[in-house]
Amino acid sequence: MNNKIIIAIDAMGGENAPSKNIEGIAIYLKKNSKKKDVFFNIYGNEDLIKNELNKHNIPNESYKIFSSSTVVSDEDTPLTAIKNSKDSSMWNSINSQIISNSNITLSAGNTGVLFVVSRMLLKTIETVDKPALAGLWPNEKNMNVVLDLGANVECDDKNLIDFSEMGAALYKALFPEDTPRVALLNIGSEEIKGTETLKKAHSKLKEISKYGDFEFNGFIEGNKITEGNSNVIITDGFTGNVALKTAEGTAKFITDSLKKSLTSTFVAKVSVLFSFFALKKFKEKLDPRKFNGAIFLGLKGPVVKSHGSTDAIGFYHSIDLSYRIIKGDLMNKIKKNLSHTSNEGN
Amino acid sequence: MNNKIIIAIDAMGGENAPSKNIEGIAIYLKKNSKKKDVFFNIYGNEDLIKNELNKHNIPNESYKIFSSSTVVSDEDTPLTAIKNSKDSSMWNSINSQIISNSNITLSAGNTGVLFVVSRMLLKTIETVDKPALAGLWPNEKNMNVVLDLGANVECDDKNLIDFSEMGAALYKALFPEDTPRVALLNIGSEEIKGTETLKKAHSKLKEISKYGDFEFNGFIEGNKITEGNSNVIITDGFTGNVALKTAEGTAKFITDSLKKSLTSTFVAKVSVLFSFFALKKFKEKLDPRKFNGAIFLGLKGPVVKSHGSTDAIGFYHSIDLSYRIIKGDLMNKIKKNLSHTSNEGN
Repeated sequence: MNNKIIIAIDAMGGENAPSKNIEGIAIYLKKNSKKKDVFFNIYGNEDLIKNELNKHNIPNESYKIFSSSTVVSDEDTPLTAIKNSKDSSMWNSINSQIISNSNITLSAGNTGVLFVVSRMLLKTIETVDKPALAGLWPNEKNMNVVLDLGANVECDDKNLIDFSEMGAALYKALFPEDTPRVALLNIGSEEIKGTETLKKAHSKLKEISKYGDFEFNGFIEGNKITEGNSNVIITDGFTGNVALKTAEGTAKFITDSLKKSLTSTFVAKVSVLFSFFALKKFKEKLDPRKFNGAIFLGLKGPVVKSHGSTDAIGFYHSIDLSYRIIKGDLMNKIKKNLSHTSNEGN
Repeated sequence: MNNKIIIAIDAMGGENAPSKNIEGIAIYLKKNSKKKDVFFNIYGNEDLIKNELNKHNIPNESYKIFSSSTVVSDEDTPLTAIKNSKDSSMWNSINSQIISNSNITLSAGNTGVLFVVSRMLLKTIETVDKPALAGLWPNEKNMNVVLDLGANVECDDKNLIDFSEMGAALYKALFPEDTPRVALLNIGSEEIKGTETLKKAHSKLKEISKYGDFEFNGFIEGNKITEGNSNVIITDGFTGNVALKTAEGTAKFITDSLKKSLTSTFVAKVSVLFSFFALKKFKEKLDPRKFNGAIFLGLKGPVVKSHGSTDAIGFYHSIDLSYRIIKGDLMNKIKKNLSHTSNEGN
């Protein structure tokens, strides 16, 4: 098991667990049958997990099951979860980064509990004030990293700078061939626009980026997020959460409208047959399961949150994301980037 | 001219002015040839305006030209505009609500200058602390009113309550058959979510809505904006601006992706012919020109801002919006709603 990337899987988190979680592993192993450097520590109800593993003929040498007696539910608060569930699959999958040899944790369970328990067990990196939730967001060229997506309702300039350093590190870990290009989300692109916090963060990032491993593109407006000229989009958790959900809602609204238009008349119905391949390609390109997986940044160990309602394909994409985070050496990249910040601060 | 709705048109504001502005009037008059209750006070360069009016055979009895010597440019700041341009078409079209008989002003010119000059000339309503910028946003059932879209970067609970009262009045003026259903944009729908400001505004609106002319639906998340269960969406100017622009960017990204998919292969190209009617309907439904026009709320006179880059069709929709605002008696509805707030405050 030396030099293997070990992913701790909370097999009981999310809708249709552990079925989709284990099927996600099966899809991953099938698509990456030549890769021999990945191993799964699987946490949850042993019987249920074994049953699912057997369905997919997953080879023994690629996993180990760690029995966990309880499950964190969607109704749990961080308080009830910590009180009642210290042998939960979620808790154990996080803790395995400390007591076992897992490199990263993946869960589709309760986000609030996952965030609090991860922070409690793994601890925040010393120079980081607030950990953040980062996600992937498609753009015309490739993909953006966007943070914070909701962990911190209010942020100061130091938080935004930490997010920039960590977001740039995540981008570089995931896309090693490309340069991270950081921008601060604002309501205008001129330096005089926005809140005092944003103006301060802007002037400091201009300095820091001279020494860091990323470019700084200044401010970016919401309508430019998908253009791809910047690929690390930084904002506070309130704005980031509203922006992400608004984009999701807009995407759904438009594709729903398209569907309605395409099935509203007989001619339209016939045309759907002809458009089948083109629309299939379109659907594939924008399949939200491809962007499934948010990353907690700023803790001493990496944790990935899969959407609770995603299916096995979505969970597979989160596994792929987890693998690439470790393969891309995220934690060392964060450390290196943050050292630039603190040097600049002195 | 008694009992006519008089719209002051800044004929020189926006790209392709005054051509698109006058053509917009022509389209409006053609589509509403039975309506005899609308009249245009047109401000700008008299020769250029006359030339455009002649092109479209606009009847003499439907307008009056007021010559204005200068034009506010996109490069003007409120300061330079106020200093240099007191005989600008924008200034005069706003001032005509005071010195002439215009009921409302419509401009496609510089937004910042329009906002500051409108506030200076028309004055803020006494009980309102900050005027706001409201816009239309399509939803699955009909249309939302959303504010603030960028006038106020930071807002307290009193501002959000003012926005709610004014937004509900605007909704009722535009859609008299329907009930305004107010919601505060937040990162969760539970009462404990979000900033202190939002929580305060939530608890006050719960009380006020008992006496007001609108329902209060509590908090709404970004992905529910287009669902239509709430139709007056309230937020601070920073979040509103980011959300609006993010939605615009997402819409563009998706329709661009669709276009690319539909023209990428021969089969796809052929299919476009077959889908023509269906896609045309789709395009029409989501045509952004239909939502063209933002409304400054909180001033003693109503001002509508058309997108600078829109065309004659977009400008026509802003004229229609201006007409409906006066026909729907917006100013009295605002006064009535705000009186509920201040009663509740006592």
